[in-house]
Amino acid sequence: MNPNDFAIAIHGGAGTIAPETMTTQKYDAYMAGLKEAIDAGFGLLQQGASSLDAVEAAVRMLEDCPLFNAGKGAVFNHAGQHEMDAAIMYGKDKTAGAVCGIGNARNPVQVARAVMERTEHVLLSGAGANAFAIAQNLPIENPAYFFNQYRYEQWQEAVFEGKVQLDHSEKKMGTVGAVAKDKFGNLAAATSTGGMTNKQFGRVGDSPLIGVGTWADDNTCAISCTGHGELFMRSVVAYDIACLIEYKGLSLQAACDLVVMDKLVKIGGEGGLVAIDKLGNIELPFNSSGMYRGYKKSDGGEKMAIYK
Amino acid sequence: MNPNDFAIAIHGGAGTIAPETMTTQKYDAYMAGLKEAIDAGFGLLQQGASSLDAVEAAVRMLEDCPLFNAGKGAVFNHAGQHEMDAAIMYGKDKTAGAVCGIGNARNPVQVARAVMERTEHVLLSGAGANAFAIAQNLPIENPAYFFNQYRYEQWQEAVFEGKVQLDHSEKKMGTVGAVAKDKFGNLAAATSTGGMTNKQFGRVGDSPLIGVGTWADDNTCAISCTGHGELFMRSVVAYDIACLIEYKGLSLQAACDLVVMDKLVKIGGEGGLVAIDKLGNIELPFNSSGMYRGYKKSDGGEKMAIYK
Repeated sequence: MNPNDFAIAIHGGAGTIAPETMTTQKYDAYMAGLKEAIDAGFGLLQQGASSLDAVEAAVRMLEDCPLFNAGKGAVFNHAGQHEMDAAIMYGKDKTAGAVCGIGNARNPVQVARAVMERTEHVLLSGAGANAFAIAQNLPIENPAYFFNQYRYEQWQEAVFEGKVQLDHSEKKMGTVGAVAKDKFGNLAAATSTGGMTNKQFGRVGDSPLIGVGTWADDNTCAISCTGHGELFMRSVVAYDIACLIEYKGLSLQAACDLVVMDKLVKIGGEGGLVAIDKLGNIELPFNSSGMYRGYKKSDGGEKMAIYK
Repeated sequence: MNPNDFAIAIHGGAGTIAPETMTTQKYDAYMAGLKEAIDAGFGLLQQGASSLDAVEAAVRMLEDCPLFNAGKGAVFNHAGQHEMDAAIMYGKDKTAGAVCGIGNARNPVQVARAVMERTEHVLLSGAGANAFAIAQNLPIENPAYFFNQYRYEQWQEAVFEGKVQLDHSEKKMGTVGAVAKDKFGNLAAATSTGGMTNKQFGRVGDSPLIGVGTWADDNTCAISCTGHGELFMRSVVAYDIACLIEYKGLSLQAACDLVVMDKLVKIGGEGGLVAIDKLGNIELPFNSSGMYRGYKKSDGGEKMAIYK
């Protein structure tokens, strides 16, 4: 890859609709949602914007799309509310911002970026994150904005069954995220999620945790994860890949394969991630049956897919 | 070290009283607090308890001591409340539990252990963590228990000055933590904190984050950190040390030195940590003016100190 080349890769979660229930109409809608997000980020990169702007724009598009479990499409928690998590990190200077358990922001990733740029903190949680979003004049929505009949029924069913829905089937959904490399060689990553349907007790997953669900360092790689959060947390997935590259000399591909297809599989850690390195290499590994995913490169390379 | 040897190391924060204001009386009180915690953990290890039981017992002692910023001695946040964070991890199977923004539990580390052992989650936050502690019948305290005239004045002063107090002076305090190796060769780590005086917006630091402030893996090391949380988070401090050992072949000492005395210093990340490896080696590095710390080994080695 030419050093001035740029690229973006995104995911819409590793919990995909079972192939047997995927209609052409649904498939086209998911593809359109992915394409819109890729184009939003890629368009900015083309105009010379930073990778940070590109991943934020792509994730905001996915948050605004009701098909994905983040922002507008966030699932209901046990109390019938929305508790969203998001993070963003810039590889140029390893600055980062994140929120967990936020309930009022239209775009949690935008609040995460405000934490990064306008505070000395990295992670704000719950009521504090809500208050911060309001204080920063970021777009706020009332609960009606996040209401979705499909998600509501999914929640009611989970309550009835007494189950916390993990994010690995049509009903359980996932996370959204993006990684990018800009014309200047800087990397960035962003991740956003509505968590698990019917989740209780303020559960926080891996998405907002720097080094776990989200990581960016120009010297190694940028990563955004989706999957079984708890097992990803105990494996420090994103930073593990960065360390395998930096300390063991592995390629991005070898490091991603080892972590996603071997280490995570051994502990039952279902999921996947999107990754990009300083050379512009892109990896989209997942050990689940599918992962909504896609990428676009300035050299013309482009791909979108759901299943293996 | 004999494989059956055991040891415990603890810290009471990297933010120490300035030497010029340290009276003999205060010094003795801190030393007594550290000794009680070390003895609680070491006594259990001697009786054949797990490293997990030992680190929990040591951290609970420190949480119960009003001198340290955790549990009873937790600082006030901006709203005049207590929002505590804690984590625990067992190196035998890399299971982990944590809470952030909990306000009602006498011993947040005990709630973190309940998250680890009684839920499928790793991290619970805020109101959800409070509800979980109650649902689990763990010891709950009302705000009066956490009231402390010294902390109250410290908070009032911070409010008056409009400052968020970081934890690096007499008024700013720190974190408590412990690491241990038991007779069976298993490692464990635990960390607990009241955060920063006058902190706003539900700020979460590094203490409850697995791989950042707390880590344990029998194959590498157990670590508990104290210091400038945000810079520790952006450096994934604990897991970085584990990776330097596992992927680069560094000794515990070399890895701790590189991370604490070089990498963190370069970005202004003031603080320190306690670490133990599978061979029973103990490191207590810090780049601040002091760190309340101590250790005790079954071979008779023992030390307690505050300043360099």
